Amino acid sequence: MKTNGILTLTTDFSDDIYVGQMKGVIVSINPEARIIDLTHRIKSFGILEAAFFISQVCPTFPPGTVHIVVIDPGVGTKRRGIILLTDRHFYIGPDNGIFHFVKKIENLKKVVEIDMNLFKDACFTFHGRDIFAPVGAYLSSGRKMEEFGKIVDKDTIVSLSLPEGCIIYIDAFGNIITNIKKEFFYGDKLIIKYGNKKVKATFARTFSEVKEGEYVVLRGSSGYLEVDKNKSSAADELAAKTGEKISISRAS
Amino acid sequence: MKTNGILTLTTDFSDDIYVGQMKGVIVSINPEARIIDLTHRIKSFGILEAAFFISQVCPTFPPGTVHIVVIDPGVGTKRRGIILLTDRHFYIGPDNGIFHFVKKIENLKKVVEIDMNLFKDACFTFHGRDIFAPVGAYLSSGRKMEEFGKIVDKDTIVSLSLPEGCIIYIDAFGNIITNIKKEFFYGDKLIIKYGNKKVKATFARTFSEVKEGEYVVLRGSSGYLEVDKNKSSAADELAAKTGEKISISRAS
Amino acid sequence: MKTNGILTLTTDFSDDIYVGQMKGVIVSINPEARIIDLTHRIKSFGILEAAFFISQVCPTFPPGTVHIVVIDPGVGTKRRGIILLTDRHFYIGPDNGIFHFVKKIENLKKVVEIDMNLFKDACFTFHGRDIFAPVGAYLSSGRKMEEFGKIVDKDTIVSLSLPEGCIIYIDAFGNIITNIKKEFFYGDKLIIKYGNKKVKATFARTFSEVKEGEYVVLRGSSGYLEVDKNKSSAADELAAKTGEKISISRAS
Repeated sequence: MKTNGILTLTTDFSDDIYVGQMKGVIVSINPEARIIDLTHRIKSFGILEAAFFISQVCPTFPPGTVHIVVIDPGVGTKRRGIILLTDRHFYIGPDNGIFHFVKKIENLKKVVEIDMNLFKDACFTFHGRDIFAPVGAYLSSGRKMEEFGKIVDKDTIVSLSLPEGCIIYIDAFGNIITNIKKEFFYGDKLIIKYGNKKVKATFARTFSEVKEGEYVVLRGSSGYLEVDKNKSSAADELAAKTGEKISISRAS
Repeated sequence: MKTNGILTLTTDFSDDIYVGQMKGVIVSINPEARIIDLTHRIKSFGILEAAFFISQVCPTFPPGTVHIVVIDPGVGTKRRGIILLTDRHFYIGPDNGIFHFVKKIENLKKVVEIDMNLFKDACFTFHGRDIFAPVGAYLSSGRKMEEFGKIVDKDTIVSLSLPEGCIIYIDAFGNIITNIKKEFFYGDKLIIKYGNKKVKATFARTFSEVKEGEYVVLRGSSGYLEVDKNKSSAADELAAKTGEKISISRAS
Repeated sequence: MKTNGILTLTTDFSDDIYVGQMKGVIVSINPEARIIDLTHRIKSFGILEAAFFISQVCPTFPPGTVHIVVIDPGVGTKRRGIILLTDRHFYIGPDNGIFHFVKKIENLKKVVEIDMNLFKDACFTFHGRDIFAPVGAYLSSGRKMEEFGKIVDKDTIVSLSLPEGCIIYIDAFGNIITNIKKEFFYGDKLIIKYGNKKVKATFARTFSEVKEGEYVVLRGSSGYLEVDKNKSSAADELAAKTGEKISISRAS
């Protein structure tokens, strides 16, 4: 697949100098690159959050887009840097679990482990600027992914080990997205258990089917169940945290 | 008027996945689109704030710019989605009052009510990604606004019902912008009443004409009066809130 | 040097209307301009912070980039607006110290003092939108810097007067960057004094050479010493503030 000139950036760098430096490096290598910010406010070191975020956002981009993802608590250790080619996009970043959901949603075609020897001057603690940004810029300007390292087995990409029922994302409205796929009937009365909390909810099509302040369970676009409250934040109410166990079952 | 390839985005989505999804949808439809972020940090559901914001920012763009504005507490209800063509720009968003000031400042030429049947797969709760972003992208790639619904009476666009003297915006420095247009002489001593608070101020050309910590009333670029404090936040001091009544009168 | 069509923006405007207005003004003058946000979250009036920020970020951009920098507490006073041409880039902004580090890192070629009479309609309190943005847009579209004012002596550009050992920047991880350039040997035991606090540290190549929670002193990419803690925030622990004195010496 050919790159289309668009590069997206997803990081946990917030307002620091690193975002600007990555952009400078990219347009220095490929002045025609079209950089699109997805977010720089992933929670620091929030691998699970980033994994879900990119799985929801990156697939909306056109084929041949290059997605650079830098949430990298392990920089400086032996974790690999990789380039993923799926049936639609290129992804570049550390192999630490951030591609957990993307590799389920899109069809993995090829994976390259980035050869660190090609980047001998890279700062020990900042591969975002010194490795991932340049690799993305070179790909977007027509270089081949095989030029940056050897092809490795697709099955070696790091997966996250998540408990069967757990919270994978909390959105800006306080809705709790889980990795639970159970089947219920619309109108079913449910019990949600989180930590030592236990609340009642209704399985519905939209949150407006319950009264204000009541819990509702919906099936999200990804097929996973999510827990909302009508007009307030379910996450605040339950003090919910990403990565923690949660259960949803029919009220008896 | 022809579109010029520039699309701006104004939303209350903050750091969530929705901003990135809108961008992905836009460049998937029109790979040449030039997306410019205005802000994604309008206060949640802040219709009045957004209405003032876009009236101050969008007119600075060149003719033919497409402005997508998604502050949409009523999504999923019967509120309309509309396309506005003024003498300078295209505006797309929910018809809930966000175009209150723009339609006074620019000259309304044509309004189309977006036909929801054209977007049957649209997510019930997210028209930003599924309707407004695609419509904007199609317009920017040369499609006509009439292709997206029927032309409706310009006078049917929702206005906000604001009290005669009220706060319409609070800026980052804590300056309070009102919708008051009264005439005073420079140097006039004034009384500002807000809630049960009553403070003295001076009518002046710039805030540097009063001492640090004193209140000053200026006429803003839009002709409206604004209440500032020299080197501190008038809004914090008065605990001012957007939408609330305020009065400014000559001290007797 | 020719401009390359890229304009970067660095401001302290946060989420207010001013960022969008600058962008609108720029693309109205030069529709082909490629605007890249560096940050809009420099601390209000944070001249030292901005000076360090741009010295780290702007040099990563390709030759001919135009950098607009608006941290401007003195707007409305007699401070000058200037255009700097270095051996690599154009910089535009108020002459208040924000170019302190850039003029040491890059080679100053020419400085123009912007003639305010060319911008008679400029808002008294907002030169970012009314002067610096238009000047940047005109430069990027091929106009010469001499068209905007007279050439002035390079040595008249405002420098910051910093104490010999002081904190010039605190990054998002709480690392403290100083303007100290002393030489030590790796492994040296050091004493850091800040205010009435006194802590022990080790001089090392990377923060992973000390235990979690221990202080480490590294030499940053700019040659300056920085004070970090492994896995926590040195700045929080020391309640460090930009501009304050700090000392680093060998433990006896």
